[in-house]
Amino acid sequence: MSDANVPATMRASVLTAARRIELQERAVPEPAADEVLVRVTAVGVCGSDVHFYQDGHLGDWQVTEPLVLGHESAGVIVDVGRDVSPSRIGQRVSVEPQHPSTSSAETLRGDYNLDPHMRFFAVPGTDGAFQEYVTIQSHFAHSIPDRVSDWAAALLEPLSVAIATGRRAGFSAGDRVLITGAGPVGLAIAQIARVSGASEILVSDLSAPRREAARRFGATTALDPIADADAIREAGVDSFVDASGAARAVQGGIESLRPGGRAVLVGMGLPNLELPVTQIQNKELWLTGIFRYANTWPAAIALVASGQVDLDAMVTGTFALGEVEAALSSTSDPSTIKSVVEPTR
Amino acid sequence: MSDANVPATMRASVLTAARRIELQERAVPEPAADEVLVRVTAVGVCGSDVHFYQDGHLGDWQVTEPLVLGHESAGVIVDVGRDVSPSRIGQRVSVEPQHPSTSSAETLRGDYNLDPHMRFFAVPGTDGAFQEYVTIQSHFAHSIPDRVSDWAAALLEPLSVAIATGRRAGFSAGDRVLITGAGPVGLAIAQIARVSGASEILVSDLSAPRREAARRFGATTALDPIADADAIREAGVDSFVDASGAARAVQGGIESLRPGGRAVLVGMGLPNLELPVTQIQNKELWLTGIFRYANTWPAAIALVASGQVDLDAMVTGTFALGEVEAALSSTSDPSTIKSVVEPTR
Amino acid sequence: MSDANVPATMRASVLTAARRIELQERAVPEPAADEVLVRVTAVGVCGSDVHFYQDGHLGDWQVTEPLVLGHESAGVIVDVGRDVSPSRIGQRVSVEPQHPSTSSAETLRGDYNLDPHMRFFAVPGTDGAFQEYVTIQSHFAHSIPDRVSDWAAALLEPLSVAIATGRRAGFSAGDRVLITGAGPVGLAIAQIARVSGASEILVSDLSAPRREAARRFGATTALDPIADADAIREAGVDSFVDASGAARAVQGGIESLRPGGRAVLVGMGLPNLELPVTQIQNKELWLTGIFRYANTWPAAIALVASGQVDLDAMVTGTFALGEVEAALSSTSDPSTIKSVVEPTR
Amino acid sequence: MSDANVPATMRASVLTAARRIELQERAVPEPAADEVLVRVTAVGVCGSDVHFYQDGHLGDWQVTEPLVLGHESAGVIVDVGRDVSPSRIGQRVSVEPQHPSTSSAETLRGDYNLDPHMRFFAVPGTDGAFQEYVTIQSHFAHSIPDRVSDWAAALLEPLSVAIATGRRAGFSAGDRVLITGAGPVGLAIAQIARVSGASEILVSDLSAPRREAARRFGATTALDPIADADAIREAGVDSFVDASGAARAVQGGIESLRPGGRAVLVGMGLPNLELPVTQIQNKELWLTGIFRYANTWPAAIALVASGQVDLDAMVTGTFALGEVEAALSSTSDPSTIKSVVEPTR
Repeated sequence: MSDANVPATMRASVLTAARRIELQERAVPEPAADEVLVRVTAVGVCGSDVHFYQDGHLGDWQVTEPLVLGHESAGVIVDVGRDVSPSRIGQRVSVEPQHPSTSSAETLRGDYNLDPHMRFFAVPGTDGAFQEYVTIQSHFAHSIPDRVSDWAAALLEPLSVAIATGRRAGFSAGDRVLITGAGPVGLAIAQIARVSGASEILVSDLSAPRREAARRFGATTALDPIADADAIREAGVDSFVDASGAARAVQGGIESLRPGGRAVLVGMGLPNLELPVTQIQNKELWLTGIFRYANTWPAAIALVASGQVDLDAMVTGTFALGEVEAALSSTSDPSTIKSVVEPTR
Repeated sequence: MSDANVPATMRASVLTAARRIELQERAVPEPAADEVLVRVTAVGVCGSDVHFYQDGHLGDWQVTEPLVLGHESAGVIVDVGRDVSPSRIGQRVSVEPQHPSTSSAETLRGDYNLDPHMRFFAVPGTDGAFQEYVTIQSHFAHSIPDRVSDWAAALLEPLSVAIATGRRAGFSAGDRVLITGAGPVGLAIAQIARVSGASEILVSDLSAPRREAARRFGATTALDPIADADAIREAGVDSFVDASGAARAVQGGIESLRPGGRAVLVGMGLPNLELPVTQIQNKELWLTGIFRYANTWPAAIALVASGQVDLDAMVTGTFALGEVEAALSSTSDPSTIKSVVEPTR
Repeated sequence: MSDANVPATMRASVLTAARRIELQERAVPEPAADEVLVRVTAVGVCGSDVHFYQDGHLGDWQVTEPLVLGHESAGVIVDVGRDVSPSRIGQRVSVEPQHPSTSSAETLRGDYNLDPHMRFFAVPGTDGAFQEYVTIQSHFAHSIPDRVSDWAAALLEPLSVAIATGRRAGFSAGDRVLITGAGPVGLAIAQIARVSGASEILVSDLSAPRREAARRFGATTALDPIADADAIREAGVDSFVDASGAARAVQGGIESLRPGGRAVLVGMGLPNLELPVTQIQNKELWLTGIFRYANTWPAAIALVASGQVDLDAMVTGTFALGEVEAALSSTSDPSTIKSVVEPTR
Repeated sequence: MSDANVPATMRASVLTAARRIELQERAVPEPAADEVLVRVTAVGVCGSDVHFYQDGHLGDWQVTEPLVLGHESAGVIVDVGRDVSPSRIGQRVSVEPQHPSTSSAETLRGDYNLDPHMRFFAVPGTDGAFQEYVTIQSHFAHSIPDRVSDWAAALLEPLSVAIATGRRAGFSAGDRVLITGAGPVGLAIAQIARVSGASEILVSDLSAPRREAARRFGATTALDPIADADAIREAGVDSFVDASGAARAVQGGIESLRPGGRAVLVGMGLPNLELPVTQIQNKELWLTGIFRYANTWPAAIALVASGQVDLDAMVTGTFALGEVEAALSSTSDPSTIKSVVEPTR
């Protein structure tokens, strides 16, 4: 069934210990019956990749075995499992990098991202996409139209985080929204706020270049969390999204909400935070968080294909497979928005 | 408290019988304690005005006493009741033309549009805005910023219909939406679908000029309901809004919905329609209608002030207070989108 | 892996043509990798079984091949597929009689009942449970505690219809509810309305014995749809559920709703019905239907195990596997609520 | 308009300083145009009354002027304002003790409890009901049927807190619910959980008598928060309500939630609490609080009139108007559930 050009082995960029990446020659994986084999064209670098690389762990996840990082990926289908139509070979796809069980209560009610038996790319136990080929279940290899670039196809993953956030935040036409943190996730959320009809989008970040980026990606006002702390606290916004993980940002954001408003905590910081419970009660706020996403790719593809969201403009650097360490390190430069590794360029 | 320039009498355009409008000299109304007096600058012409004018009734509402039509209005506050701050005098405002009771179950739970004791502009029993001055409760005289024109301020009313529709339809980023009917309401709904993030907006209308208008106001595809009937039926849209009132449009639109989709019936037609109940069951669709709006003005103002929605571009003709009959008649011209009467120009 | 006592062949009650049922000797099915084999102890008779038996079709579904009816079933696991833990053998289970695809958009968002590739018990193409053994995916063979009888375990299926209905109707503490039709589904819905906190539960049925049954199963008032038509129309209920399929019941029920109320159409009747669209608009009602159920078994088991819902009391007759025709015919007797076939008694 | 028996003066129980209550002779208030005058028959004692009495403040509210406490009240209408029908005189009513503005954004969208201009009984600035007569807007004097006692009519107020909680918690048929704290509010919430269909209702309290009370009012399991801490944490409940205000109860309750579950914080404790944010994110929980209630009285009356909820059984002691201090002090006795003052007995 396979494309004649699939080799037996491939190069993979492997994290073998904290701050130690090796390029290894590995067997190209075989797609299982319901899977496809994807030749990887582009992989975005995520903050979680950087954490695993620098610290050897992320929260409770510990890297104890060699691990391939990278979970924001796109490519071309080059082979299919026995239950998948060979007509898929040759399709350009964006990879939704998860493999949930199909029978858990969470999956059955549509929250497959919360499935306790999940296998997810680039989390210890499951390799990611900083390699030339990956396998993924056929329905999670989402076909993309020509007008979506490889870069954008890879970045549908962080856009999915933003879409999931927007759904929980309830972004609505005419809304006032506060987003704290203007890293790539904050900027993607600002874009989703904008396309969802928010009329005022306040974005705060300590970094001036990031505030400048925020203005390009949808912010109607970019704020300094220290200098503008009072303005933020008194904003009276309909919804607040934290994309910073900083305790003070979360606390100030909750204060900034109007009665009945919603807070969505996306940024990852300390496991416990002191929160203004009396404010949550007296204003009857709703507070929640997100854990990845479910059922977002169709919307993500539509938004990029239509031109409503621009992901290509977020790419500030590209790297070859042998340059993964450089790609990971690039994220500490405040002028970096999103670095992309191109494993098979 | 009043502005020194408020005269004792004013001109009012009064419907005295079907197809009979008279310009009368009437006393300028006194604002009640919680009301303001507004000098009217612009009033949009609505289909319901035309119905009252042509037929002397609209559904069960019968015109038995002289009635001033017009409920899409804007102006300047020139006087205030005793419980309203005189600082409001001079403010440019958009009039939300309703006066609900404050103690009904419907009002108390936020559905004040459904209040059974409602008094609404230009419905028999309550005069509308085709006159030089109107009174309205202070909180329903919504202040507007300079960058919202008088025309747009008047047309916040049909925009509110569109916002209420969008909320019930659940327009969401990346959605596919079908709108049947490209009159002014359909076009306003198309704009709301667009600003709410819909990626595909199919608009159908029998009239070629209206399909052309639809393309200018947000439609990604404009369709002919007869020639494109099959394409509509198979579209598999997330939500469907009828703005035509035509039985076939409603039936075809319901067929066009994906499983779990929503239908919102806005257009007014026959009191009873044959609907495909088995489709509603087998696809577990939600079907609803709207009756005016509640809590929409803040969003409407934000959307126009920010430039997300363009209402000025919908105005195709303006008329003086003495030309109300011409304004009402202008709506039969397919090139008319929205006619505006300017009572005090 | 199998229980030593599983024979090679079994008896199956097969519909071979309209009004023609044969008892056949068939091979006991083999469970697939993710399935279990269930020895069937009890199967409820549903109105759809009766339709297939009497008419040879139900809506668009046509019986062209021999078909085993029965989809409300319970039993004991006697064998498991190779991916299922043998520890399940011996468990008493209630069968959720569906096999959706795992990769459709509908399944992925939690609406697996709407999956277009569904295989469902006793629908042409898939045999049902009027036989001694059936196979089902392991996670759809729901374990039940001792205090749930075999009868009740089978009737968790119609209870699931009622739970799905209650969720869509939004039954809430203190509500006023109207249910039209007091057959087994209407009675199960009345029970769900009661346990969901409805304070007034109006149930209408043309049959006096059924009205009497309604009073036993939760109705606070039982009504005659003709004699009490005015009272129904003026009831002002929070939600209305049609379990009759009758056009007049649906129309009167929609009229009976308060502004903002919800209508759920459960009964199956004509594919198209004339509905009061102006009422739906002017009262901003929500109208929907249901198509089976998803994610209901855990709640159904909890409600019966706790004694909140009584399903045993709904059983008015039991039949052996050789008496399926008698069981199907029994439903025309107005004193019948639910007939149960016991294939392996 | 008034009942001939309304005297000119009345007795009022007035808090003049912390721990200092005086019985004063005051003028009977005059009902405003939209108000009624109620002769008070029963007033429940609430924890907030106790706080004002003992500490002279509650959170940010400081008692600086003499204040009449008591906001859970019932009585008989004895006079009406000029816009209220005299036919109301003689009606037994339950008092919804709030007076929101009618024009705030919060009131207009149905959240009148969040109105920033609210005047609420027994909060500094507005007297409560520990006096013989009170005035209230006519629509907030809810008529009650004969089968609701005076005690129960007063306790519709704390029941309203429980109803508001249940709505936000999304209590649903078959649910598993955890309630921490078995004071009168926790017990009312347990009753609402039960009537809303919850199948397992876990209630924890440090006090053994209160755990015993919990079993009588709906708990299926009563737990000791220390001895049963592990069982609570691993419960996997659908919703969690804190009615204790204790930091550890809140933290443990959030841990006890299943993925996608909801936490509602009702108990009042410290203004800030350390919350397990990573749990909120990884399980995509929703967390909120409540601030009083809106639109609950109709449901509350229906639930008590139907016998679904028993409020009389919560009354453990009654007191005359001269015994308010004893009533306030009675709440420290763990055998007290609810003390009731009867001002006009």
